[in-house]
Amino acid sequence: MRAVRMTEPGVLEQVEVPTPAAGPGEVLLRVGAVGACHSDLHILDAPPGLFPTPLTLGHEIAGTVDGIGPGVTGWASGDRAAVYGIIGCGHCRACLRGLENQCRTVPVGGIGLSRDGGLAEHVVVPASRLLHVGDMDLVQAAPLTDAGLTPYHAVELARPNLRPGTRCVVIGIGGLGHMAVQILVATTAVHIIAVDTSVAALDLATRLGAHHVVQAGPDAVERIRAIVGPPPDGADVVIDCVGADPTLTTARQVVATGGQLMLVGLAGGTLPVRPVADEPPTIPFEATARVPFWGTRAELQEVIALGRLGLLQADVQTFGLDQAPEAYAMLRQGEIHGRAVIVP
Amino acid sequence: MRAVRMTEPGVLEQVEVPTPAAGPGEVLLRVGAVGACHSDLHILDAPPGLFPTPLTLGHEIAGTVDGIGPGVTGWASGDRAAVYGIIGCGHCRACLRGLENQCRTVPVGGIGLSRDGGLAEHVVVPASRLLHVGDMDLVQAAPLTDAGLTPYHAVELARPNLRPGTRCVVIGIGGLGHMAVQILVATTAVHIIAVDTSVAALDLATRLGAHHVVQAGPDAVERIRAIVGPPPDGADVVIDCVGADPTLTTARQVVATGGQLMLVGLAGGTLPVRPVADEPPTIPFEATARVPFWGTRAELQEVIALGRLGLLQADVQTFGLDQAPEAYAMLRQGEIHGRAVIVP
Amino acid sequence: MRAVRMTEPGVLEQVEVPTPAAGPGEVLLRVGAVGACHSDLHILDAPPGLFPTPLTLGHEIAGTVDGIGPGVTGWASGDRAAVYGIIGCGHCRACLRGLENQCRTVPVGGIGLSRDGGLAEHVVVPASRLLHVGDMDLVQAAPLTDAGLTPYHAVELARPNLRPGTRCVVIGIGGLGHMAVQILVATTAVHIIAVDTSVAALDLATRLGAHHVVQAGPDAVERIRAIVGPPPDGADVVIDCVGADPTLTTARQVVATGGQLMLVGLAGGTLPVRPVADEPPTIPFEATARVPFWGTRAELQEVIALGRLGLLQADVQTFGLDQAPEAYAMLRQGEIHGRAVIVP
Amino acid sequence: MRAVRMTEPGVLEQVEVPTPAAGPGEVLLRVGAVGACHSDLHILDAPPGLFPTPLTLGHEIAGTVDGIGPGVTGWASGDRAAVYGIIGCGHCRACLRGLENQCRTVPVGGIGLSRDGGLAEHVVVPASRLLHVGDMDLVQAAPLTDAGLTPYHAVELARPNLRPGTRCVVIGIGGLGHMAVQILVATTAVHIIAVDTSVAALDLATRLGAHHVVQAGPDAVERIRAIVGPPPDGADVVIDCVGADPTLTTARQVVATGGQLMLVGLAGGTLPVRPVADEPPTIPFEATARVPFWGTRAELQEVIALGRLGLLQADVQTFGLDQAPEAYAMLRQGEIHGRAVIVP
Repeated sequence: MRAVRMTEPGVLEQVEVPTPAAGPGEVLLRVGAVGACHSDLHILDAPPGLFPTPLTLGHEIAGTVDGIGPGVTGWASGDRAAVYGIIGCGHCRACLRGLENQCRTVPVGGIGLSRDGGLAEHVVVPASRLLHVGDMDLVQAAPLTDAGLTPYHAVELARPNLRPGTRCVVIGIGGLGHMAVQILVATTAVHIIAVDTSVAALDLATRLGAHHVVQAGPDAVERIRAIVGPPPDGADVVIDCVGADPTLTTARQVVATGGQLMLVGLAGGTLPVRPVADEPPTIPFEATARVPFWGTRAELQEVIALGRLGLLQADVQTFGLDQAPEAYAMLRQGEIHGRAVIVP
Repeated sequence: MRAVRMTEPGVLEQVEVPTPAAGPGEVLLRVGAVGACHSDLHILDAPPGLFPTPLTLGHEIAGTVDGIGPGVTGWASGDRAAVYGIIGCGHCRACLRGLENQCRTVPVGGIGLSRDGGLAEHVVVPASRLLHVGDMDLVQAAPLTDAGLTPYHAVELARPNLRPGTRCVVIGIGGLGHMAVQILVATTAVHIIAVDTSVAALDLATRLGAHHVVQAGPDAVERIRAIVGPPPDGADVVIDCVGADPTLTTARQVVATGGQLMLVGLAGGTLPVRPVADEPPTIPFEATARVPFWGTRAELQEVIALGRLGLLQADVQTFGLDQAPEAYAMLRQGEIHGRAVIVP
Repeated sequence: MRAVRMTEPGVLEQVEVPTPAAGPGEVLLRVGAVGACHSDLHILDAPPGLFPTPLTLGHEIAGTVDGIGPGVTGWASGDRAAVYGIIGCGHCRACLRGLENQCRTVPVGGIGLSRDGGLAEHVVVPASRLLHVGDMDLVQAAPLTDAGLTPYHAVELARPNLRPGTRCVVIGIGGLGHMAVQILVATTAVHIIAVDTSVAALDLATRLGAHHVVQAGPDAVERIRAIVGPPPDGADVVIDCVGADPTLTTARQVVATGGQLMLVGLAGGTLPVRPVADEPPTIPFEATARVPFWGTRAELQEVIALGRLGLLQADVQTFGLDQAPEAYAMLRQGEIHGRAVIVP
Repeated sequence: MRAVRMTEPGVLEQVEVPTPAAGPGEVLLRVGAVGACHSDLHILDAPPGLFPTPLTLGHEIAGTVDGIGPGVTGWASGDRAAVYGIIGCGHCRACLRGLENQCRTVPVGGIGLSRDGGLAEHVVVPASRLLHVGDMDLVQAAPLTDAGLTPYHAVELARPNLRPGTRCVVIGIGGLGHMAVQILVATTAVHIIAVDTSVAALDLATRLGAHHVVQAGPDAVERIRAIVGPPPDGADVVIDCVGADPTLTTARQVVATGGQLMLVGLAGGTLPVRPVADEPPTIPFEATARVPFWGTRAELQEVIALGRLGLLQADVQTFGLDQAPEAYAMLRQGEIHGRAVIVP
């Protein structure tokens, strides 16, 4: 079969490999769609040794069951499924609670990360990683597994603060942010304030249901505060889907006392948390800061439910398997709008 | 009556003032004991205008009801009470939930902060600020209202992570830290790891029930990790009662993925939270950082319950009202062991 | 002023009384609208001595501030407000957490229950009972305080089970049930299954956003199970707004293992909970049963937010103050559709 | 090897069977200890067809790893482990959250229930069912998996109400109840009130740390109310480890408004929940009633932690494998004190 692999650190190419077979507890999936994620670029750029090679990339996968290993129950050929990408140790305190994204034992691993992923005609995954998607379009199902799950998890963590009439600021209305807005619209009655540098992104936020939009810039903090209230009031939740210094600075200045800061974007900015009595605080008292990571299987089940109810839909741009390297190049250049999805 | 007042910014003196009378909804309390808190030094050192003058200091108060204003129910002369020091707006989202320490409307205010406090023979407080202490020693009751309540609140916030068999690191076994250890012993079955520079403090921690002690120093992180496990494992909760750069650096290196960092001490260090994919994280994924503030009335009721059950006891050093300025001078010099309590 | 009072047990009449004045901590409200509630009939029918007489009825109140007593802050003449009807003791474990509907000290009391209510031109209420409604129509605001708050509270209690894609059965699409459906639509992404004997009520449920409707009857359990799944699966939450034996029997047969049964209606049926190993359970293992009572001030603030966002609207039928006795007679006969609201 | 089996419905006998081998994902355990549980009697008494025959009984198992099937990681020969007895479907909403005791797909099944259990020299279990016990005595470890886990789960469900200074009534200080008292002592600072008909049981409760004991009888409700307060106050939590009509009647009369009733014992009594406005309620408003079932893997991990910390210890009476039928006969006659544990 054809597969798009990192054959050595930094090198992505399409190669012919034997179709794998499902081992005990595993399922062979015919890949229907696989999302191209920024994390894949980080894998390509990582120093040698951090990831195995050769490695078929692709951790945002949806497909159709095409073979079943020994000991697997609950799945039959032809079943349509989305893949939960994380593989935790299964034994630790976190895994026992279904929080594999907080696994205490293994460094982050998973499908397309520590074993072959979905940028191929077929992929083998542990049966426990599969979730039914019913008759959903697989091109829509694939991005739910990461671009949908990651902001959903952030919203879940913040949910105790997302009560009717409260205010949630979403910074960065790109691949994750435009999903965050939809998730908030579908599952809460909060006032949504969208922030971005791009007018087109803000227009998208408005179409998706944001109640207010604010263009990033020197007066953004003042304009957001005019909506959410000045300190010690402010936004009950801020979801920063960028994570650069300017967005984190905005975020910490508009979050309320007791509010929540969710640092979803990984652009490398620094949020300083300084507990001190004598000067203005860097973040308000009682506010929490957190760097969420992906999400849980139970949450993915709920994200799929949102998709099937028609309440969550990714903007996608599709590519053939041959075009995968081109798709990643465009992703690196910032030329992808919404999510790039490869259809093998 | 005699009162110890900040008569002008920075000046603390004992003066004679008229005994106040309880207005509508208020109660006159004969002060039995009042704790001297580091925050009082911050008030004395604050720039002019931030706090009113003259201002009777003292926000850690226990006493006996000595007069009752119009419209007060539920209190009678002779009742013994502790005082909850915060006065929230009563109308905002936080106050309606009893979270006055997260009030969204007013800057932090309260008894001994925005109106006269307890460093006097009598003090007038809103009746709603009083909690029954039964036959507790008032000298013990007073420090519960801040030195007890503040770490209790931090433990409450962290409680979802404080499950039997998990690990909690307490950094700084001073006035707040020695209370934190007792609260953990009384209300959880976690492994307690106490960290301090002082051997005497570590001995105290052991006597109070800490399971492990680690002296602060260059190898502290490695020694704590040997107990709590290396990343991505670690301590489920770290309560930093110091909050200086070195303690925050230790804290963030020993907290587990998904753990909680509670920055209780206000020594002015900075915890950098950096969301980035390409380098070791400054705090683990899914971990939360928070700067708790004091506590709630409902929590104070529970702190008092711990005191009455004999499960929480402050180390105290008592002074007469005349000696209050001396007590504060000693506090500033770090010469107070445990809590200084003024007995008018 | 005119007031509609229970002058002696069971007797409701309009009388002329002096306009009351606001005491310390109180506010005088010019009544804009007041809902007529089934509970008022219970008060009229109660044995002598249980409620004071004379008593002005009416605990679903919205109005305009018309006078302010000593010591009140945060309110000005002309402010428009809804009234939270419960008055807890303020001191107990529940009240300290803002759960006055669970007050441990006083039997249920409140405005229009233990002191004069809103069926009059003016009413005096403690300022702490008021919540801002902005420019909302007062006729819409009044029913939010009970007919809106009661189902909202039930939904809040059940919220941990109301995750995207789960199933909630609402039994009885009357005054409370039609609010419950709207609250679920506005704040969750669950599948809503509405059950009623009346086709008109089911049509209303569909218009309000219910996904499935099932007419009550002998095959209702089987039809609901076809939607929510058979035991041990079933509905994650069942909100019974009737509470008669037949509805409770349906409820307990369609709730899932680990689900929640909310007994909101007070029609006097009995739900038997029988823990036994040898026979089919009367309710599933791990399911909870609860009889919610009204709601909290914080929840009312959120209900008002839903109203102001246009997400929650009561069907109302208005009457003048003179017509109040007639409105109650109609209510007793079941001739009111939606909520009867008196406009003085 | 020798095994004690239900060879046909109702017939328990020791037989010689081949030692089983671990299949994919499974582990062979040399049984160190296995508890004899009342549920085993229910299995023996169940109508034909409900359980498979022949069936080796025993679901409270601790042992040593003696063989490892293909695909198992994280376990080595010689590891000492306790067995989590439930086997959920792994796919449903509940299983994904680690709540296999609420599995929505399969009727209750598990080791010693739907497949061979531990009343034998060896038992094969899925590796995912094992939890490390370190150097714990296996005779102590075995009863933790059910007699320890079941009350622990009930306490966990009730934990939001088990705040310092609140009151918890434990009814029935037998096999489960004496564990409940220890769990409360180890993990809370509540006032524990133990209720039993037997003075010896009450003495045991006192030794284990109960603060009050009340002998069951006609005046028990009044005596408990004297401790916990009369309605609408009362016990924040009642854990009924009997579940007969008299204990349920006591339970519902002493639970507080907003409290929790945990029906752990399965003696077949009925708790009537009647929502009605006109008469005294059968359970207080806002109180919850629940029939907990066993517990979760994550909770078992915590129960084992309590055991290893020396905070939870079962009273045990040991028997050889040959004596298993005799042990069950004694259990049926009520002649076992504490827990009967078979040591093969």
